[in-house]
This record gives sequence, C-alpha cells and structure tokens, in this order.
Amino acid sequence: MHPYEKRWQALDAALYEAELDALLLNPSPTLTYLTGLPFHLMERPIVGIFRPESPPIIVLPELESGKLQDAPFSTQAFTYGENPAAWHKAFSAAAKAGGLNNKRIGVEPTRLRVLELRYLESAAPQAAFVSSEAVIAALRMIKDENELTAMRKAVHIAQEALEEALRAFRVGMSEKELAAELVLQLLRHGSEPQLPFFPIIASGPNSANPHAVPTERHISTGDLLIIDWGATVEGYYSDLTRTFGIGNVEAEPAHIVDVVHQANQNALRAAHPGLPAGEVDAAARQVIANAGYAQYFIHRTGHGLGCDTHEPPYIFGENRQPLASGMTFTIEPGIYLPGRGGARIEDDVVITADGAQSLSDLPRTLQTLE
Amino acid sequence: MHPYEKRWQALDAALYEAELDALLLNPSPTLTYLTGLPFHLMERPIVGIFRPESPPIIVLPELESGKLQDAPFSTQAFTYGENPAAWHKAFSAAAKAGGLNNKRIGVEPTRLRVLELRYLESAAPQAAFVSSEAVIAALRMIKDENELTAMRKAVHIAQEALEEALRAFRVGMSEKELAAELVLQLLRHGSEPQLPFFPIIASGPNSANPHAVPTERHISTGDLLIIDWGATVEGYYSDLTRTFGIGNVEAEPAHIVDVVHQANQNALRAAHPGLPAGEVDAAARQVIANAGYAQYFIHRTGHGLGCDTHEPPYIFGENRQPLASGMTFTIEPGIYLPGRGGARIEDDVVITADGAQSLSDLPRTLQTLE
Repeated sequence: MHPYEKRWQALDAALYEAELDALLLNPSPTLTYLTGLPFHLMERPIVGIFRPESPPIIVLPELESGKLQDAPFSTQAFTYGENPAAWHKAFSAAAKAGGLNNKRIGVEPTRLRVLELRYLESAAPQAAFVSSEAVIAALRMIKDENELTAMRKAVHIAQEALEEALRAFRVGMSEKELAAELVLQLLRHGSEPQLPFFPIIASGPNSANPHAVPTERHISTGDLLIIDWGATVEGYYSDLTRTFGIGNVEAEPAHIVDVVHQANQNALRAAHPGLPAGEVDAAARQVIANAGYAQYFIHRTGHGLGCDTHEPPYIFGENRQPLASGMTFTIEPGIYLPGRGGARIEDDVVITADGAQSLSDLPRTLQTLE
Repeated sequence: MHPYEKRWQALDAALYEAELDALLLNPSPTLTYLTGLPFHLMERPIVGIFRPESPPIIVLPELESGKLQDAPFSTQAFTYGENPAAWHKAFSAAAKAGGLNNKRIGVEPTRLRVLELRYLESAAPQAAFVSSEAVIAALRMIKDENELTAMRKAVHIAQEALEEALRAFRVGMSEKELAAELVLQLLRHGSEPQLPFFPIIASGPNSANPHAVPTERHISTGDLLIIDWGATVEGYYSDLTRTFGIGNVEAEPAHIVDVVHQANQNALRAAHPGLPAGEVDAAARQVIANAGYAQYFIHRTGHGLGCDTHEPPYIFGENRQPLASGMTFTIEPGIYLPGRGGARIEDDVVITADGAQSLSDLPRTLQTLE
C-alpha cells in the first residue's frame, strides 16, 4: 500500500461511474495529487495515463526520468530525447502498451493542451477524449486531514509574513516595494517558492480594480489599501485579502470596508453541509445590496481552494452544487467604487460537520497604517 | 497606425503562406505580442481570434472587459458572466461574427487548452484547428530593437540583483534563503513581478541535477554552487547561470567549471547568421567531449528566449533551422557528475549581422564565495 493507493481507488471508482476507461493528465495539480511527481509544464510534453488497477503510464523526456526513481510506486515509462521529430514514437508506444485505442479517455480541460491532445489522438485515433472536470472535482473537492493541515500552515505563514511585512511599511512606499517585501517575508516564513500568485497591493484608485497588479504608485494618506496574498505548503495554497486605511480615510471608504466585513461574516455564518454553493454567494451579496452597493460587487463571492488556486466549488449565484464537510473555498466579497477605491476581505474556509470555519483569523475591521 | 499594426501585417502574410484563415490564441506570450492585452490563464476561458484585415475578436469574462478599453485598436468583444453554463453562447456568437465555420484555424499547441478548443469546436463544428507553431515561431523569432532593449534591461537587472544578493551570502545559509534574497533583489532592481522562473540555487550534490529546486540544504565549504536566475522587463526575460565555488573546491569540480566555460565560449564564437542551430550545440558539445565529459552533458545547449522562457530556436543537435540576425537564445552547456556536483554557465545571446553577441557580461570563470 503506497501513499496514493487510496486516491487511485477513488479514481477507479469515479472513472467507472463516468464510463471512462482512463484519465489522461499533463503536469497539473491533479497529476501531483495522484502521484506526487514534481513535473512542470513546458514545451516538452509530459503525460500520465491512469487506468483501473494498473500502474500509471508516463510519457516524459529522458532528462526528467530520474524523477520517477523516487516514486513510491511502479510506473510504465516511455521516454524521448531532445529532437521533437521523434517524440510521437514514445506516445505511440504508450498508447499501444495501454491499449488506448477505441477507449473513452477523460481529460482535464483547463490543463491539457492541444500539444498533448494531438499526440494522443495520433497514437490512439479511435479513442474519444472526453471532459472529466466533474470526475476530477469529485476526487479533489473534499480535503483530508493532511491537506487541511497543509492549508492551515499556508494560512499561518501568510498571516505571519504579512504582519512582518507591515512592520516595514511606511507612507509613500510604492505598491511594488511593499509587494517585494511581502514576497521576501512569505519565503522567509516558510512558503514554498511557487507562490499561489504574486501579491496584489492596490492602493487608492487602484484598489477599485479587483485584478490590479502592484505599480510604482506611492501609497498615500487617505488611501484604501487592498492586500491579496497567499503562501504555499506542500503544494497547497492560502489566499487571503485584507483592506487597510492609510492614516485617516474618509467616511464612505471606511464604510465600505465595514459593509464588506459584514458580508464576509454573513457568508461564513450561512455556509454549512448541504447548502447549495450559490446560497453562500447570496448571503454575501444580500448584505452589500442592503447597504446600497449591489452594482459595485462585480465578481462571484469565492472559489474553491486547495492544490489549485481556483478550483471547484465556485461560489456564484447559480451554483446548485451542495456543500459538503471537508470542502475548502474562499469567501471574498468586495465593493469597488471606480476611480475612488475598493474594499475586499477574503478568508479561506472549510465546511465542517455542521457549519463552516475560517482558517484565517487576522483582524477584518479597518486597520490603520501610518 | 497603432503599435501592433506591423505585427498584424506580418501575421496576415504568415497565415496566407500557411493557408490558414485565422489564428486562435488564449492568454499567452503570443497574445500579448499581438495585442499587449494583459490577460492571464485561468478557469474562465479567454480567446483572441485574428483574421486578415479585421479587428481581433475577443471572448472574455465581463469582469475583464475593462482591459479592452485601454487597447490602442478596436476589437469585437463577446463577454460572459460568472455562470459557466452560459459561456458557450459567447463563443457561438464570436464564431458566427467571425464566419469561422469551414475555416482552417491555426492554434498554438503549447498554449491552447482543451477548454478553449472544445468551445470553438462546438461553435464552429466544420472548422479545422491546425498547429501553427511554425507561423508563430516565424513571427516572434526575430526580435526588433524594442524587444532587444527590454531583454538587455532584463539581463542588466538580473546581473545587478545577483551581485547585491551575493553581498548577503554567507557559508551555511540555505539554498532557500539565498533564493529568497535573490528574488527580493530582482524585484528591488526593477524586475516585473512575473519572474521568468523561480531562481535555481543548487549546491554540492544538488548541483548535479539540472532541474534542481532550492532546498533547506546549507551551502558548505567545498561545494559547487549553481545559480540560474532571470528578470522580466516589459514581458521579456533574461535567463542566466553562473557556477561558484564555496571556499576551496577540489581539482575536478574546478576543472569542470573551466571546461563548461570553454564550451560556452566556443558555442558563442560559432554562432552566426545562416548556421544551423544544431551547429551551436555541436560547438559546445565538442569541447565537453574532448575533455572526456560527453556523457555528463545531458541536455541541449540552449533554447530561444524572448517573451517566453523557452521558445524557438531550440539549440539541439538535429535542428537544421538556420540562425538569423535578431534571433535570441541561451547558450548553457553543463557537466553533471551524479552525487558529486555540476557546473553550468548560461548566457543570453543575440545573432548579429555577422556573428553573435552575449547580452550578459558577468565573469564566467570560477568565482569563490566565502
């Protein structure tokens, strides 16, 4: 019994349920979830092919084949050299060994590229390559204790790193400078180097853009300051947001932080097993609508979080997916006043036996930096 | 005439040449190259569709549509909301507006995902989606002055950042600590936050693995230390490697650094317009073979570099692609002695009118840190 045996059994059951003969993956969080193998996406195609009760088939560059030696399970490996003209041979041999022709093969649409798809289509011309988004979601949505422990650590590191980075804050520093300091602290506090994303540091009018990237803008008195950041532990992510005031902020900016805080807490209180994910969105949105800011909450309330930065369950109004104990996702309502500023407060939560718990506990009320 | 007009004209010519009616891109360096639009890859599909003498068609989330307002050209945009069940409508409308059915549409195999491919296949069921790797390579391989200026800056920032980070070096610090310091210095010296890759800091036996990632290992006297790092300027990358000795290193480790240095320089001297890329590989490999280390140089000599970290031309033995003035690629021979240590020296070079020039000038001989 190796550490991935249980996940492979769950995969076999899910493939049977979905009437699929195999799952085809390229380097992705799902491949890591099923194998622990540290492959990354590049111009050289790498795939793992999973069939019930069989060792995984791996097609990979010779240069990377050493990584298979550390795996706690056996594989059927097919390698190729540096000349792309010969790569198709490794795929043909793999498809033949796996009996893939005529089979129904699940793929991960947000990850598999035309590169790998075409090699497999050529190698198994009668096979059907079918979206297996739901199969993968079902495998990965419910986190086990090890995964939750990693996520809790990733939250802890992110919180400590932010507190340390804010000690270096001074009015007038640029968004980029603060972002660099925060990255350094994330790494110093033990985050893995592959951060979930580069921190968003968005000040003043920039904070009205939910997808802002750090600029040369000097953070100034009166600004709202949104910091959206996270850490990585064993491939699992945290993803938090807090909104700060620089010195004295005006009444309305301070008010929207308070409204967003109430929306965040209302969504957390609402979440429990069995509730459709969309109801969590509704709980946040209602608070913001009641305060008169409905049109300024321009995105969904959250997204699943785990070994992917965005994964199911997605927290948007129409999503009828019932929540279940062990699901982890963000709650991150925001209000964005164009040209003026925005507020967002994001926590990572886990569904418990009878409710939901936030993994993060940094203060959510408007904190003043000066 | 907008800033991308010339690139669009080159694209139209290349599509005509390849008998393609359109080019389909998702967020990728090529999309940025053709539009400057700052989209990123996520679970929500975004595509740009380019047809001769027509404004690009863009399918994107409503949440991102503000980014089109800053574009210096007009687009035909089709947006969708947060509910995936309705996304296909935007793709259908786009395919209809673009008359894509029955067309031959080029795609970028290393970038386009099954996600976007399936939406387009459903929206234009009679269309053929064809690899356009060569079309894209031809567009992007020859860099213009602006691109070269950005790459020179990215090299300059990387070199300055390394020098600064090495001032903080002390024997006994961990690979991870040095990597964190180097990341901080890259950002402080002006790199864009999206680094080309997280720096490789590989010491002692770890340096024998060309794809090492920084570990908790303490860097120790007698080690070889490989640092492979780069910076980003306007979306263009640098990618450099130097090998250091920690205190006194033994004779053979010192010798392999010297051999790799000679191989690097021999490849640089060999490169000139018209030479097949594979001959640059041969020039590096010959030096290493002559020194008796052929079997320990286990990867190609280099890869193209630009707004992608790995792109054509790839520098491997069988590649008959002729080099041309304005092409940019890495020269990075290495020798890896399993269990003992390795050496790699990597420069970024540009093919000139009659030869090749290194963009990087940090010392290549064995430098001692202590």
